Amino acid sequence: AELGYHGPDAAGRVLRSGRANAFGVVFADRLSYVFTDPFAIGLLAAFTEVLEDAGVGVFLAPVPAGPGGHPADAAAIGTAVVDGVVGLCAGPGHPGIVAAARRQLPVVLTDTAAEHDYVSIDDRAAGRTVGEHLAGLGHRVVGLVCEIPGGDGTRVLGRDELPAQVEAYRALGWDDAANRIEGIAESLADLQLLTVTAGRNTREDGRRCAATLLDRDPRPTAVVAVSDVLALGVLEEVRSRGLVPGQDVSVTGFDGIPEARAAGLTTLVQPIAEKGRWAARLLLDPSLQPRQVVLPTELRVGTTTGPAPGSR
Amino acid sequence: AELGYHGPDAAGRVLRSGRANAFGVVFADRLSYVFTDPFAIGLLAAFTEVLEDAGVGVFLAPVPAGPGGHPADAAAIGTAVVDGVVGLCAGPGHPGIVAAARRQLPVVLTDTAAEHDYVSIDDRAAGRTVGEHLAGLGHRVVGLVCEIPGGDGTRVLGRDELPAQVEAYRALGWDDAANRIEGIAESLADLQLLTVTAGRNTREDGRRCAATLLDRDPRPTAVVAVSDVLALGVLEEVRSRGLVPGQDVSVTGFDGIPEARAAGLTTLVQPIAEKGRWAARLLLDPSLQPRQVVLPTELRVGTTTGPAPGSR
Repeated sequence: AELGYHGPDAAGRVLRSGRANAFGVVFADRLSYVFTDPFAIGLLAAFTEVLEDAGVGVFLAPVPAGPGGHPADAAAIGTAVVDGVVGLCAGPGHPGIVAAARRQLPVVLTDTAAEHDYVSIDDRAAGRTVGEHLAGLGHRVVGLVCEIPGGDGTRVLGRDELPAQVEAYRALGWDDAANRIEGIAESLADLQLLTVTAGRNTREDGRRCAATLLDRDPRPTAVVAVSDVLALGVLEEVRSRGLVPGQDVSVTGFDGIPEARAAGLTTLVQPIAEKGRWAARLLLDPSLQPRQVVLPTELRVGTTTGPAPGSR
Repeated sequence: AELGYHGPDAAGRVLRSGRANAFGVVFADRLSYVFTDPFAIGLLAAFTEVLEDAGVGVFLAPVPAGPGGHPADAAAIGTAVVDGVVGLCAGPGHPGIVAAARRQLPVVLTDTAAEHDYVSIDDRAAGRTVGEHLAGLGHRVVGLVCEIPGGDGTRVLGRDELPAQVEAYRALGWDDAANRIEGIAESLADLQLLTVTAGRNTREDGRRCAATLLDRDPRPTAVVAVSDVLALGVLEEVRSRGLVPGQDVSVTGFDGIPEARAAGLTTLVQPIAEKGRWAARLLLDPSLQPRQVVLPTELRVGTTTGPAPGSR
């Protein structure tokens, strides 16, 4: 050690030991976005906490920007020095997950997928729960706000265009969103459903989608957002027009981030931290059973939903 | 590829190419805490954005819990497969930085340190700026709230105990905090300065420290916190006692996180995103000059500071 020898090379150690002591994380979106998303941060915090207690590091694979700023390829995770990969909001069709599976690395998803280990929720049933809440309140014209690359928040899709939208999600590896939307659409089968797509999962884009919906005649009496972040943007737009959430327009979210509780948002709460912890446990312990975990969810009714105007 | 051969092993690729295409990040605290800290998240978001554009990943080294829940050793970064290491809020004395330097990996700090490349602010001058603002407002008894492992927010340190406190920070590799405190103490040399130490950089711990200070007789007319997160906790405690920030008790923060602006906090704003971007640039491009970058700061005077009661 005195003469400039600093121990074996790190990559050589990995080759000899067969262990990198790191797990890779694949996200549905760019890293720079992930750190602005309370849901992703909550999941990542719980995931890293469990790994850290086991002395294992986290490799965040870069996501090259593709068309619309979304994943184009997965070279980085395809060559990363890791012992396994988790898909946080990245389903079986995501290029990074496909690349990891091709390397035969252990893969854990946070989406349901027959061919993978996962910790997930039943997004489809959760979507139905949200829709049934609104249908039960008498709403007949409902807006749906969801994120998708290339969406600009101005175009309104009819119900016949939804299947293509759902397929687009699956092609990106966004199975959770696809399943949610299918559940929502099922539960609102008898109603008028107007879908607007935002480019990103941000308040700004949620607000832009809401503006398009609220300009319609007849105006939707309820707006379903597929995430809390989008729903908080919808709330801003509703309030900026002097409308009262829960009275003039009902608004629902999805996830249960801390900001949603603070805003009194009616939302489908999923156990974010438990999801992150289970993902880490499944990666750390290949013998842990079961390998496909579905966690419970809960509709938390806040002040932002109420009976449809005129339905009382 | 048909017969189960999935390309060269990732670690072998690193050995051959000499490049891991990943930079390691060493934090001053556990990862699970980092994801709760708006300052750390802001820095990390900007850092990863620049790396991502260059197709480079981020390795978050696990930080084993030591006494008081803080860094105990640095085995993980000492063996990680990375091309370089950045210390985010981890100075030259941090065990992880010491381990990286021993491996002769490129190291970039976000603290000033003669022997390293860095992007930093002048924490000492910034501390003085905060102190001078309060001294100029006529405050004579000032509380100082800072984070340090083992602090429980109840013990009040006199000025003679501050040098040992500063040394404790440096030993942990928390040079930024050490420098801030020295600057604050210098600028308040003629005043009564009462220091209370919190265990973690959280609102709860900031609030606990504030409670101890506000129970004193005479009560400090101003409280300086070394971070915005601690200051937001101080504000909560001030308000919970029916006291008005900026009138009965002045409160200052440090960093300039979004929540600080929303709260109208008087704070020393540092360019968080620029710090993260510069750290990434210095790691990516060894020929980039200068290698020691000091970014400007600004005192943003909000509504939480005002003339000392009785001084008008």
